[in-house]
Amino acid sequence: MYRAPVEDIAFTLKHVAGLQAAIDAGHLGDLTDDLVDAILNEAGRFASEEVAPLAQEGEKGTPLKDGVVTTPPGWAGLYRNWIDGGWNSLTGTPDYGGQGLPTMLSVATSEMWNSSSMAFSLCSLLTMGAVEAVEAHADETLKQIYLEKLISGEWTGTMNLTEPHAGSDLGVLKTRAEPVGDGSYRIFGQKIFITYGEHDFADNIIHLVLARLPDAPPGTRGISLFLVPKFLVNADGSLGARNDLICHSVEHKLGIHGSPTCTMIYGDGKFGDEPGALGWLIGEENRGLACMFTMMNNARLNVGIQGVAVAEAAYQKALEYANERTQGKAPGWQGEGMSPIIEHPDIQRDLLTMKSLAQASRAIAFSCAHAIDMADSAEGRGDADAAKFWRERANLLTPIAKAFSTDIGVDAASIGVQVHGGMGFIEETGAARLLRDSRIAPIYEGTNGIQAIDLVTRKLPQSGGEHVKGYIGELREITAEVGRKNNPDFGMTADKLDEALADLETATDWLLQALQDGRIQEALAGATPYQRLFGLTSGAVYLAKGALVETGDALENGRIALCRFCAENLLGETSALRNAVTQGAQSLIQARSALG
Amino acid sequence: MYRAPVEDIAFTLKHVAGLQAAIDAGHLGDLTDDLVDAILNEAGRFASEEVAPLAQEGEKGTPLKDGVVTTPPGWAGLYRNWIDGGWNSLTGTPDYGGQGLPTMLSVATSEMWNSSSMAFSLCSLLTMGAVEAVEAHADETLKQIYLEKLISGEWTGTMNLTEPHAGSDLGVLKTRAEPVGDGSYRIFGQKIFITYGEHDFADNIIHLVLARLPDAPPGTRGISLFLVPKFLVNADGSLGARNDLICHSVEHKLGIHGSPTCTMIYGDGKFGDEPGALGWLIGEENRGLACMFTMMNNARLNVGIQGVAVAEAAYQKALEYANERTQGKAPGWQGEGMSPIIEHPDIQRDLLTMKSLAQASRAIAFSCAHAIDMADSAEGRGDADAAKFWRERANLLTPIAKAFSTDIGVDAASIGVQVHGGMGFIEETGAARLLRDSRIAPIYEGTNGIQAIDLVTRKLPQSGGEHVKGYIGELREITAEVGRKNNPDFGMTADKLDEALADLETATDWLLQALQDGRIQEALAGATPYQRLFGLTSGAVYLAKGALVETGDALENGRIALCRFCAENLLGETSALRNAVTQGAQSLIQARSALG
Repeated sequence: MYRAPVEDIAFTLKHVAGLQAAIDAGHLGDLTDDLVDAILNEAGRFASEEVAPLAQEGEKGTPLKDGVVTTPPGWAGLYRNWIDGGWNSLTGTPDYGGQGLPTMLSVATSEMWNSSSMAFSLCSLLTMGAVEAVEAHADETLKQIYLEKLISGEWTGTMNLTEPHAGSDLGVLKTRAEPVGDGSYRIFGQKIFITYGEHDFADNIIHLVLARLPDAPPGTRGISLFLVPKFLVNADGSLGARNDLICHSVEHKLGIHGSPTCTMIYGDGKFGDEPGALGWLIGEENRGLACMFTMMNNARLNVGIQGVAVAEAAYQKALEYANERTQGKAPGWQGEGMSPIIEHPDIQRDLLTMKSLAQASRAIAFSCAHAIDMADSAEGRGDADAAKFWRERANLLTPIAKAFSTDIGVDAASIGVQVHGGMGFIEETGAARLLRDSRIAPIYEGTNGIQAIDLVTRKLPQSGGEHVKGYIGELREITAEVGRKNNPDFGMTADKLDEALADLETATDWLLQALQDGRIQEALAGATPYQRLFGLTSGAVYLAKGALVETGDALENGRIALCRFCAENLLGETSALRNAVTQGAQSLIQARSALG
Repeated sequence: MYRAPVEDIAFTLKHVAGLQAAIDAGHLGDLTDDLVDAILNEAGRFASEEVAPLAQEGEKGTPLKDGVVTTPPGWAGLYRNWIDGGWNSLTGTPDYGGQGLPTMLSVATSEMWNSSSMAFSLCSLLTMGAVEAVEAHADETLKQIYLEKLISGEWTGTMNLTEPHAGSDLGVLKTRAEPVGDGSYRIFGQKIFITYGEHDFADNIIHLVLARLPDAPPGTRGISLFLVPKFLVNADGSLGARNDLICHSVEHKLGIHGSPTCTMIYGDGKFGDEPGALGWLIGEENRGLACMFTMMNNARLNVGIQGVAVAEAAYQKALEYANERTQGKAPGWQGEGMSPIIEHPDIQRDLLTMKSLAQASRAIAFSCAHAIDMADSAEGRGDADAAKFWRERANLLTPIAKAFSTDIGVDAASIGVQVHGGMGFIEETGAARLLRDSRIAPIYEGTNGIQAIDLVTRKLPQSGGEHVKGYIGELREITAEVGRKNNPDFGMTADKLDEALADLETATDWLLQALQDGRIQEALAGATPYQRLFGLTSGAVYLAKGALVETGDALENGRIALCRFCAENLLGETSALRNAVTQGAQSLIQARSALG
């Protein structure tokens, strides 16, 4: 059973991602070390003791009958306890009952919820996205009606983007919104893949829906964002009539079986006096995509956290099995009978690979959250330069946090199945569930291919390429420190990190040049290998950053050993990735002919 | 829907794996080109038109009631048609009604069955294993009773190895066999993970069961192999009493839902006058493991073929979707509206990666089958040197064919889900099923970690290391030919192949030295990266071998382009794998402390 790795999480937050320095510099208000520890410990307890034991119940699915979805046994009560613990309101604005805590704490706790059950935790991930969009773009009236209950989690939120023909490309969506004349709109259309579009956790569900106004220009410049509640809300805040929207079906999916993925129909006349679901505009007309991006950026980071979370959960599960299961005699085994399979070098490689990737991706995701917090803090104190710097840092790390983490989530979950041998293929073991659950994360909130395009075409060119170069320079500093340390336990770590950074630099320069030359197709051909090169290198350097922290105990030795394992066993891939970026495009384009 | 790639399969068989040369040299009896084509075409038709349409039915599972398993709708009839087509008897000895065809044809057709449905095809994979064990080790009486019906497929076979505490390590199994005195034995025990242990395809099921005799020595030297039929067989060949064995339960698995994975109980007294399932010894007492290895070697190759098959099926499915689905505008897209996603460079990379890996692993597996056929042929004509050479070649390639192919099967299936975006996560699409099905292949018939141990500790040292060196020398010859060709379409292929071969040589020498020095733990630490290094390099060289064949048509251009893509985009990983072998052990061993 999952035990929240509170110590690892706290260490990475404070000493790798920069929470400690940010607290010390006063950038995070009156947040204290003690409060951080108290929050992490209590979240760890709740995740391990209350969420994890109900995770496997999620496999019972979410049956739909007459538009009503029943969530898995115990989950509605769990959700109630979870919001009563204040976990939904962590980052919400204090003006509406939120705790106003930094994003770093939100992602740290989010990792624990998602390790214990990705399917359960998804509900709040969507609600938090809705909170952000409403906080940032809705008018005061909407905020007054909806924000407090969304922040507390008493009501939940959804994101309605995708339609059958509009996935990655939202420009072609067809859902329409007709102005009623009183400031409200009537929404008509069908949305698919709506996570927690219908459920029994809460009394009301607040749908954020992208739709087109009658005279909207075509493409992405003609999309507006609407708030469409399941139940209309009376002036006194009580629930009124059922709005004209319904869950038409629930998908039969590979994983996250406890999370209802709904097809939602708006305005088919099932409820209300006249057809059309009543909705209210969020932000300006035709600026819906910009509003959506507010919530999508953080949602991308939160999906990245799911990758970290599933890697951690898979690692723990495999480790436990490898310590218990005996089979064969490992080389050098002195004990009685068969050795635990953890003594076999190949199993050690599996477990160390999982642990390295989990820790590296955690450090990336937490660093991204740190950048968001630093940007917010700089904006708050009116420091425009710092705000620009940190916003660019967050922008740069978001696709890495999303794509690298979710890719390694799948990898780690797959290795986890393998460590279990035949038992891994049996559903009751639970390792297979982690693999099934993990597989959605590289897809939703922008496929990892889309993230790579975003990284290369929008994030690298920030500040004319200077931001990414500065970032790589920071990583170089850490690597140099490993060299100066001259500790033999690091083995070849410094050299290996240097080589990887050189690969990253070469590939970055090549891409910036290709963009400048207008060789877009060539740049995009290498986008995915570049994204992995970036994630692997920065993740390994972050492991080194942690390994440099001197605590003088066994944990320090373990961090150094893991960092060295990662550098000497996993990082070598960077030269291949560099070549794929700088030399691979031509053959890729030529080989189009080899496809049907 | 899957269409058997008969042309690709025939080409690889004849021009890469060596079927053409073997026919021309008269090593394969009176087998002709025309017969090969006729068999492949008809198998292709059957796989595409009859098996594939019923594949998704397998998701309905195999319910068990009172010891009786019901297979998915239509499958029992499909099985009947399949054996009526003679597909089960392809390689069986003509003495008992088999067609005596070479293993190359068996694996080529097996690929097609497994692409269309892995779960359906598993039944015959096990039967063929039983046929081999009975052919090679059973006495004439048993052959007379069982062999013809196993070869035709009228009866099916199983392999009963695993027990709850004995998986990879069979030395600790507990099932026991008590001599009755008349040449038969009574078997008592429980076996798990028995594929098609019970079903409704056939009138009788012939279980091959590993068990211990009363005075057997401990460990693997005390295991004997028994033939235990579900129904006893009367002297006239008709079915007699039900034997005392029963399917106790069917596993709830991640994939291959149409294939019943059974827990079998022998001798609990449910059937017959006295407890104990009646069985007959195959081969000598306490030599059961040797008999089992006869069937396991070929079974490993056949599982490797499942990896190839699922990669091909996933590729085809993703290709079809990528051609149909439109989204966004790819760079350079001149058409109306959105472009098909296949025009996006990142999707091309996905598809080319899948296709490269499928073709490379097919070439490895077929080459392994070729070696088996050549060894059999050499033995048949009493050429001991050739027999030794080809047996060593088959031995060397078997773990690669098993492990590399099944690993890339999972990779390709996972990429296939990704290409489908959100639809890939929906079960009805079928891409997720391929991923779920693929995940068992790296586990069963010896986990891929076990294959790596086998490769390093038993296959590399063959003929004092000379065999593997000779093999690498052959690959070098092919690479040199690419260089001599001087065709600019090959791009940097020759150089990249040379680098990979140098990596393979370095790692091979390092491992041979480590074995010689008795540094077993260090050698095993690098076994899995070495296995992938071997598979990737040899697979890429085989692509080059095919690309060197001049047909003068578009297929030739496609083969060259794919070979180049593989060399320039995928092969770069070899330097990292070499380093993991030659430099990674120390850090791996040190990092044991970082695990719990």
